[in-house]
Amino acid sequence: MPTTQDLSLAIDLGGTKAAFAVIDAGGSLRARSKRVSRPRGKAIPFDDLAEAAREVVWSAGVTWDDVRAAGVLVPGIYTPSTGKAWAPNLWGWEEILLRPELESRFPVPVRIDSDRSGYVLGEQWLGAARGCTDVVFLAVGTGIGAGILSAGRLIRGSAGIAGAAGWFAVDPRWKQDYAHAGCWEAEAAGPALAQRAAAMLSSGGESVLPDMCGGLLSELTAEMVTEAARGGDFVAMKAVDETVDYLCMGIAGLISLLNPQVIVLGGGLMRATDLFLDPIRRGVLRWAQPIAAKQARIEVSQLGDDAGLFGAARLALHGEAP
Amino acid sequence: MPTTQDLSLAIDLGGTKAAFAVIDAGGSLRARSKRVSRPRGKAIPFDDLAEAAREVVWSAGVTWDDVRAAGVLVPGIYTPSTGKAWAPNLWGWEEILLRPELESRFPVPVRIDSDRSGYVLGEQWLGAARGCTDVVFLAVGTGIGAGILSAGRLIRGSAGIAGAAGWFAVDPRWKQDYAHAGCWEAEAAGPALAQRAAAMLSSGGESVLPDMCGGLLSELTAEMVTEAARGGDFVAMKAVDETVDYLCMGIAGLISLLNPQVIVLGGGLMRATDLFLDPIRRGVLRWAQPIAAKQARIEVSQLGDDAGLFGAARLALHGEAP
Repeated sequence: MPTTQDLSLAIDLGGTKAAFAVIDAGGSLRARSKRVSRPRGKAIPFDDLAEAAREVVWSAGVTWDDVRAAGVLVPGIYTPSTGKAWAPNLWGWEEILLRPELESRFPVPVRIDSDRSGYVLGEQWLGAARGCTDVVFLAVGTGIGAGILSAGRLIRGSAGIAGAAGWFAVDPRWKQDYAHAGCWEAEAAGPALAQRAAAMLSSGGESVLPDMCGGLLSELTAEMVTEAARGGDFVAMKAVDETVDYLCMGIAGLISLLNPQVIVLGGGLMRATDLFLDPIRRGVLRWAQPIAAKQARIEVSQLGDDAGLFGAARLALHGEAP
Repeated sequence: MPTTQDLSLAIDLGGTKAAFAVIDAGGSLRARSKRVSRPRGKAIPFDDLAEAAREVVWSAGVTWDDVRAAGVLVPGIYTPSTGKAWAPNLWGWEEILLRPELESRFPVPVRIDSDRSGYVLGEQWLGAARGCTDVVFLAVGTGIGAGILSAGRLIRGSAGIAGAAGWFAVDPRWKQDYAHAGCWEAEAAGPALAQRAAAMLSSGGESVLPDMCGGLLSELTAEMVTEAARGGDFVAMKAVDETVDYLCMGIAGLISLLNPQVIVLGGGLMRATDLFLDPIRRGVLRWAQPIAAKQARIEVSQLGDDAGLFGAARLALHGEAP
């Protein structure tokens, strides 16, 4: 049976869904639940969060007395010195005084961090970076962001916004898109893959893609392109290749600058492991510092959507360092 | 008068010159000397180093009993776990078991680190990054490399080779040069400036540069180009502009990824502060994550060639963190 010191409450506040779990120090998930992050038209639903937390503790068959601490991840920036969080997808553009809101509702200590910090902690604890001290978790989905561990410590930067790798400058031929999302994100995230394929179609090219999006190229998604590429569609394959080229450039930069043992690839686009993993492993060798490139494994997330929950649990139970 | 705990012996083993100093905990330089790093045809001159160290201690008017520790910087990689150092400019391509060689000759504790770690520590202690916790020292000379402090700690990477920023991939139009030096270094270091100007001259263009290099474009140096640019030479100014564009791309990447309070620019090329500093400050804003860009000052090294000596002293007296 677990002792009092063994359990954590893990909360991953995603932009659309909030995930809750009770996880023990051995990494076993005792109970879990999910709900909408922010019910439509409601104010910031801290009371709902607290209720969902109570419920998941209850459904694990334990009480608050058995929970040592709560770990909470926010999709944005958390500033430990002020307790404030900035998460535009959840609360709009204003900073929220998050820590006291949670501390007043949870009868256990609360540790808060950004989602990307949580992902890298989770993968280091139980996933593709187990036992490593120097790790980059790279999320490539609708955006690009990185969680970084160096010598076992989270790299947060002077104001908590380190890891904005989507702003890597990887092409001197500046475009307006770069101003909104960052150059690397504009060239290598999921939307870039879809836009690249759409541009190739506009200039003519036989492909199944127009049928897939009902003729509306603006409706083309990264998922459609990866599916078509798997089927051997030439335009889709070419769009994937060019996106891989850009992905390799940024990943090589992370390897050269940080000399990690492993880069863990996560996020929606990296679910197409069959299309991306081997080409990335090969392509990175062209750009990265050669010794650092040899020392860095490139792996796909082993925890997938649960990286955040396990990272939040790790944060609650151990802080950042193992 | 200094107490026993106040003095450090600082040694910066450069590729051509080795610098020695006795520096106190207040940052005052009590004595200094310089000599050739490796006399021609000699084996690794550890005994010479020890002798030079004894002399500088003597010339400071103190004895070894007054020196708390020695800090030694090597132009390459140092691995604390093994005590080995790799510094091809000094000792060829083999790793040297450096720590025991020094410990057996110096009657004080010895702390060793890479030169780029020393530079960032020096600037943080007494230079352009005083009091900052998150700092990048970027050396732009014949090569490009970075020393990184995050939350007051040196970022070394899993095998001590973090900071190889010269390998940032900043242009997808791959060239053979990138394989030797790294893409960013090949586009933005001193030799790149000279080559860029030479290439412009080859394709015709009026300029004072051919006269400066006696008609031998292969002899053109970055110094000649910066001098000509100051004089209003169009080709030289254009070469500087294009080099600045690439410099901005990589510096923006450092800012976006690491969210530092300050980037300190050092190295030979950055001595042309009048040509580079303001254009870099402006140009970085185009590429960097906007919040991180606002938070990061960009400054020129205040310690210049002495950054290494002061960093070595800091290392000896305090270790890495303030």
